[in-house]
Amino acid sequence: MFNKILIANRGEIALRVIRTCAEMGIKTVAVYSTADRDSLHVKFADEAVCIGPSNSAASYLNIPNIIAAAEITNADAIHPGYGFLSENAEFSAICAENNIKFIGADADMINKMGDKATAKATMQAAGVPLIPGSDGLLASVEEGLKIAEEIGYPVILKATAGGGGRGMRIVNEPSEFEKAWNSARQEAGAAFGNDGMYLEKFVVNPRHVEIQIVGDQYGNVSHLSERDCSIQRRHQKLVEETPSPAITPEIREAMGEAAVRGAKAIKYEGAGTVEFLLDVEGNFYFMEMNTRIQVEHPVTEQVTGFDLIREQIKVAAGEPISGKHYEPKAFSMECRINAEDPEKDFRPSPGTITTLHLPGGPGVRVDTHVYAGYTIPPNYDSMIAKLIVTAETREEVLRRMKRALNEFVIEGIKTTIPFHLKLMDNEQFKSGDFTTKFLETYSYETL
Amino acid sequence: MFNKILIANRGEIALRVIRTCAEMGIKTVAVYSTADRDSLHVKFADEAVCIGPSNSAASYLNIPNIIAAAEITNADAIHPGYGFLSENAEFSAICAENNIKFIGADADMINKMGDKATAKATMQAAGVPLIPGSDGLLASVEEGLKIAEEIGYPVILKATAGGGGRGMRIVNEPSEFEKAWNSARQEAGAAFGNDGMYLEKFVVNPRHVEIQIVGDQYGNVSHLSERDCSIQRRHQKLVEETPSPAITPEIREAMGEAAVRGAKAIKYEGAGTVEFLLDVEGNFYFMEMNTRIQVEHPVTEQVTGFDLIREQIKVAAGEPISGKHYEPKAFSMECRINAEDPEKDFRPSPGTITTLHLPGGPGVRVDTHVYAGYTIPPNYDSMIAKLIVTAETREEVLRRMKRALNEFVIEGIKTTIPFHLKLMDNEQFKSGDFTTKFLETYSYETL
Repeated sequence: MFNKILIANRGEIALRVIRTCAEMGIKTVAVYSTADRDSLHVKFADEAVCIGPSNSAASYLNIPNIIAAAEITNADAIHPGYGFLSENAEFSAICAENNIKFIGADADMINKMGDKATAKATMQAAGVPLIPGSDGLLASVEEGLKIAEEIGYPVILKATAGGGGRGMRIVNEPSEFEKAWNSARQEAGAAFGNDGMYLEKFVVNPRHVEIQIVGDQYGNVSHLSERDCSIQRRHQKLVEETPSPAITPEIREAMGEAAVRGAKAIKYEGAGTVEFLLDVEGNFYFMEMNTRIQVEHPVTEQVTGFDLIREQIKVAAGEPISGKHYEPKAFSMECRINAEDPEKDFRPSPGTITTLHLPGGPGVRVDTHVYAGYTIPPNYDSMIAKLIVTAETREEVLRRMKRALNEFVIEGIKTTIPFHLKLMDNEQFKSGDFTTKFLETYSYETL
Repeated sequence: MFNKILIANRGEIALRVIRTCAEMGIKTVAVYSTADRDSLHVKFADEAVCIGPSNSAASYLNIPNIIAAAEITNADAIHPGYGFLSENAEFSAICAENNIKFIGADADMINKMGDKATAKATMQAAGVPLIPGSDGLLASVEEGLKIAEEIGYPVILKATAGGGGRGMRIVNEPSEFEKAWNSARQEAGAAFGNDGMYLEKFVVNPRHVEIQIVGDQYGNVSHLSERDCSIQRRHQKLVEETPSPAITPEIREAMGEAAVRGAKAIKYEGAGTVEFLLDVEGNFYFMEMNTRIQVEHPVTEQVTGFDLIREQIKVAAGEPISGKHYEPKAFSMECRINAEDPEKDFRPSPGTITTLHLPGGPGVRVDTHVYAGYTIPPNYDSMIAKLIVTAETREEVLRRMKRALNEFVIEGIKTTIPFHLKLMDNEQFKSGDFTTKFLETYSYETL
């Protein structure tokens, strides 16, 4: 087992890793930018090293400084958290060259899963379902019609050079196909000077459902069931929960098996997440794989009893896992509390927290690095706390979350707490019947 | 179900009840003394009524003022918490007379279980094991010797008028009996003018193990397994845990059945606790029954998934329970964080909390009513927080508790956190092999 782990991150995830290390008897080294001098991760680590000024490029992304900090302090492993260098193949490789264990994927794996086309091809070869579509560019309307017939309508035509919605057309039935094809090609040609088109099944009302997996160095892969992360604003997750209100035990089993199959195919080591799009008929399609711990990992911990950071450290140190799969034993939901003003289009609201009261009592977990008197620097992510609530049913989770949100007092800055309170009262959200488009349908005001 | 519950208590338990009411959609009324104006239970209740000055007799024990507060606010039930009026038969009766549901035992039940002799006789009749001994006073040495032979040595001779250890003798074998009898009688006669003696089995190295039960209005009683509360200082519990490190599944089943038998015999309604002494051979003996929620109820909630306050409210409102019994699904421990100075013989340390950081992360629950800037009044109980930690094994609980205690920052006053930190490192405590005498063996300094 490692003697000392350097945590190449800040905020709540740095504190989260320190907590598990403390329980495992592993010493910790915090790194910090000058803007984070007063952060709790600095206070609670056994040692702390300043790695640069406030801007991330010069500190939390500064590979030479982080490696130097690890060498000075004799850290034998680095935990990268999420974001920053957690999926940086170069950093993973440099750690390996310096005989420092990177607690995450190796460079090759990161490269494989980081490139979307490679990731999809790899998963397809392993038998993980992808969104059906043409194999590359379409040669003609006729070929397009034939493939669309095979995969079923609606389909979406996409310009290979496209972006920003241009050169894209949704086609609901065969009679619309030719017209859509012509106008999309024309638009793409005019916009990009390239009218090459490909075709995919159009997933109506998709949900974002992901599978947590853990793999060891011996080829064993366990899955810990799913998280539903469909509540997103501009592709940023705001609320995550498990189990997903949308999936049956059969879909869970099939999705879990697909994720494990994909991970085994690449001999995946560590904690990872396989993200799927789920359609209304229960079909699911591989989107991408994240080769790191996720922000939303606590909901899985709450319902399985696992400490996922500990699992990461254990497999990085060469311990084997069982390879068994784990079903949710309860219901859990996480609300991301961001220093943002929901009344002003979620504009960041850095500043000093004057009063703080954290919710408590049964089924309530708070992961946060802030305290009364703490000043949130404007330089980083606006997430200041994760409120995680667990209960025996989803209905109880919703009531408990509302209670805990009402009890959460943060003064001095604006937060997303009022948004979450409105969400917990929204009938569609409460019903469990929502998609990734939910926050396109509702604004903060209409929620 | 009730519309509005008045909570006739203060501090963390008042907040605890408010939390569950909020989740159940029940309105709450806080009552407070002038010393508790700024307490969180006042802030988080839907309504709050001042019931008197700081001294408890004039406020939290002032029955007419509390009843008046309930009538003014139209509360249809009163939750008494623990302590104060929670086991006051007169209060329970007055609530009933005023058509306010007392969420606890009725006056008759409180009287029965409140008087030790009646409680023991009732439990004995129901087949719950008591400490074996003479049936009243001994007529002669010969009778004493005969009974001691039957129940086994060691036994303890006790003066019926005794107290403070006088007129008491432990007898380890028959040859010591007559001498002990003579000296105890002489001492008792001289001290109390009454040399009547009775005899009991002397429980060597006892542990305090209690069973949580819940009964409904239809005669169903469930037990939710045990809590071990052997870590006590002057009969005040400091640490509680479940499962007990000392009991086997067989003892749990037998103890649970005994508790249920006793509760059924008295048609017990509500949440209650049956306390037992457990000896080293696994024999257990009824001590007393508490007809209220206990301070240490969260450890049971953590390992069974029940919300015990909700169960209390539900059965008080006439809902039936299953009558099934529940085994611990995990390990949980509670440390009572008191505003006391362990270096100065646990002297109370009221004052203003200047800095506060609550521990968080996986498996950590904090129940507290304090916040940074809060002034602890000197008038009441010194407990300011309960730190409850849950994990898959006892060893993990110990490590997690230590981590959470290290992370718990309270400045401005002295607390029992340093005591708990020492305890978590004590080899005997860690081994699980300790008795109610543990804190007679160890002082804070020698721990």
